[in-house]
Order: sequence, then structure tokens, then C-alpha cells
Amino acid sequence: MKQIEIKKDILSAHEMLAQENRELFERKGTFVLNLMSSPGAGKTTLLERTIELLKDTFSLAVIEGDIATSYDAERISSLGVKVVQINTGGACHLDSAMIKNALAEFSADRLDVLIIENVGNLVCPAEFNLGEDAKVMILSVTEGEDKPFKYPLMFRIARVLIINKVDLLPYIDCSTKRIIRDAISLNPDLKIFEMSCTKKIGLNLWKEWLKEEINKKKYKIIAR
Amino acid sequence: MKQIEIKKDILSAHEMLAQENRELFERKGTFVLNLMSSPGAGKTTLLERTIELLKDTFSLAVIEGDIATSYDAERISSLGVKVVQINTGGACHLDSAMIKNALAEFSADRLDVLIIENVGNLVCPAEFNLGEDAKVMILSVTEGEDKPFKYPLMFRIARVLIINKVDLLPYIDCSTKRIIRDAISLNPDLKIFEMSCTKKIGLNLWKEWLKEEINKKKYKIIAR
Repeated sequence: MKQIEIKKDILSAHEMLAQENRELFERKGTFVLNLMSSPGAGKTTLLERTIELLKDTFSLAVIEGDIATSYDAERISSLGVKVVQINTGGACHLDSAMIKNALAEFSADRLDVLIIENVGNLVCPAEFNLGEDAKVMILSVTEGEDKPFKYPLMFRIARVLIINKVDLLPYIDCSTKRIIRDAISLNPDLKIFEMSCTKKIGLNLWKEWLKEEINKKKYKIIAR
Repeated sequence: MKQIEIKKDILSAHEMLAQENRELFERKGTFVLNLMSSPGAGKTTLLERTIELLKDTFSLAVIEGDIATSYDAERISSLGVKVVQINTGGACHLDSAMIKNALAEFSADRLDVLIIENVGNLVCPAEFNLGEDAKVMILSVTEGEDKPFKYPLMFRIARVLIINKVDLLPYIDCSTKRIIRDAISLNPDLKIFEMSCTKKIGLNLWKEWLKEEINKKKYKIIAR
């Protein structure tokens, strides 16, 4: 007789699927980013810039999450990158099941990098692991300096914080120093980049960090 | 024997409490706004400006919804207005039960206007009626012109759209014409105001609309 023990700390269905996604990405050596922010903080523009930075060196694909429309997927597709659009209907976040379904579209592809653009929402997406290597949070300076303590979970679970739209700092009242200080106090390991994706400011450090992370994951499977 | 018939179209618990709130506001003649937007679109600054516009003429109170912190409540309190802070913990929206609880704090007050500032989120708050007279959605131009079709529910259920931060239009790529056209196509009855709350631009039309609505509700109970 086979006995199945129910572990006390049982993984939820979502966490189990996230783990399956994670194992697939490990096997394939694919580095996976999960981009999260408020609506309009610049996720899609960051994605466009990131594709331009990486596409000559690495094989790339994108999963676009939106409640409705395929505007973002069209923007990305025009850059010659394979993109799968997930329309969540009403759902305010992506989850690991949606990602697992979308991954079927890439089953034949050898990918160095997969970038997932989550639904624009600073709250709910923070609660769902997708199987990614890095949760990247984008905060635009126009949203204000008080955001870290107002949305603490997002700042705690992020591995990277991108402070975007710094070109608008002369016209608004926002201290990036305070953002950085408060974000670090919530999450001392947070990697922070200050950028303007539309004006192409501050992209080099982001590119260097990405290249290092992508190669680390890639060489891990080659070394096996 | 008393028979209770379960109606087919039974109201959910949330909708029932929203109805109770609504009836209380009717009895008291209190005009109630529910302010909703992405994080950092300018809800609290709109609230500050609105209080300045109305407080000499009307009796006012505020309910502040935040996931964490009482930053906004402190900003409002400093204007001499009674404010109750709701910290939702993780919850990404306010609901009618939270409002009902908060209303106990105002039970002795005769209020012309109650302004509820919802959690910063363009998705989930749209699904919850609180018993308000008007759902007011704030969209800042820095969020981009593509938002109406990307977050259609919020634009459909709003009675008022405030397009905020118009002072930043010279520095960004955003067409308010497109926002207005798309928003109207989703919701032909939408009342739209273009403003900069920080620079105090476009506040007069908003003030006139508010005064008319507040007086309508107030005189309704006086006329009874």
C-alpha cells in the first residue's frame, strides 16, 4: 500500500505550478523576469528598451499580461520578438497557471531570456510567484516618494527596483533619495537602477546586470 | 409560521451593506465620493484641493483607505477635517463593510460631504460598491493615453473622470484627446475634468459641479 503523507506546510496549487515553471526554466537555462508596477509606470517602454539592449546577443521572448487589449503585445511584436498575450479578463494579476499555459507556445524554442509583463497593479501581483528568477518593480517618480511604505509587500518581494521617468524630476516634487532610503529599509538586498526609459537615460548599468544574470543561468546548464 | 423566500437574484453581502450605507447617506443628506486611481495619480492632492474649495461652505469628513501607513490621513487631518484611516492590511480595495465600520465614527456628525479615498489600484476597487453617489476616477497624464481600453471596467463604472497633472503635458508624449475619446466610447455619460491639482489648474469647474451635486442631495432631505 502506498501512503501519501500530507505535509503540514503544503504548497498551494499556485506555488506548485510556479515550482514546475521554475524547474522548466532551470532545465532550459532561461533567465526569467517578472515586471510589475502601477499602470503607466513604464513597464512596456522598459521592455522595449531591454529588448533593444539584448536582442543581438540573446534569444528572447515575452509574455504580455493585460486585463484587456493587445496594445502592448503589438508594440513588442513590432520589434521582431515572439510574444504571447494573456488577457486576464477581470483578473488583476498573472498567476503561475496562466504562465504555464502560455509556456506551451514556446515549447520548441531555446530561450536565454523570457520577460513577463504583469498586469499594472502595485498590490495583487506581489502575492503570486510565477517561477521567475527576478521580480522587477518599476516605480515612476511621478507616482511620488511615499510609495515604499504605502505598498510595502511589493518593495519587499522585489529583487530589482527601477526608478523610472527621472527626466521629469525637474518638474515635480519628488526625492529619489527618500525612495531609495525607504525601499532599502524594507528590503536591504534590493538592487536599484535610476532610469528614464523614454529618454534612454541610465540603461547601461541595467544592461550589465542583465547580461551577468542571463549568462550565469545559461552557463549553469552548460556546466552540468 | 413565517416563511422566508430566497430571492433568485439575491444581493451579495457586500452589496447589501453598500445598500445600507446608501440609505444612511440618503437619510443624512450626505453626498459621498469614492476616489479611485492608480498609485500616485493624485488622489490625496485632489482631496486636499477639494477640501480647500468646500470647507468654508459645507461640513466635510474623509475616510482614508491605504494598505499601510497613515501618511494620507495626516495630510488631511492637518487641514482641520475629521478623518478616519482604514488600513486594509493586504487587501487591495475598500469594501462596504469597511466603510460601514468607519461610519460609526461619524454617527454624531451632520455631514454634507463624505470623501472616501480608496486604495491605489485601477483594477479591484472598481468591483466594489461602497454606497457612494459618485465614483471618481483620477488618471494622471503621465500614466499614458492607452489606459481607458486597458482598464475598461474602471472607466465604465466611474461617473467622473479627472485627468490630472496636465501641467506635465509639455514634457511627455500623451494625448488627452485620445483619453477623452476612448473614455467616452466606453462610458458616454462620463463627466470629465482636466486638472493639475498641484498647480491648481482647472479647479473651478470641479468646484461648481460638486456644489451643485452636494446641494441637490442636501435639499432632497430638507424638501421631505
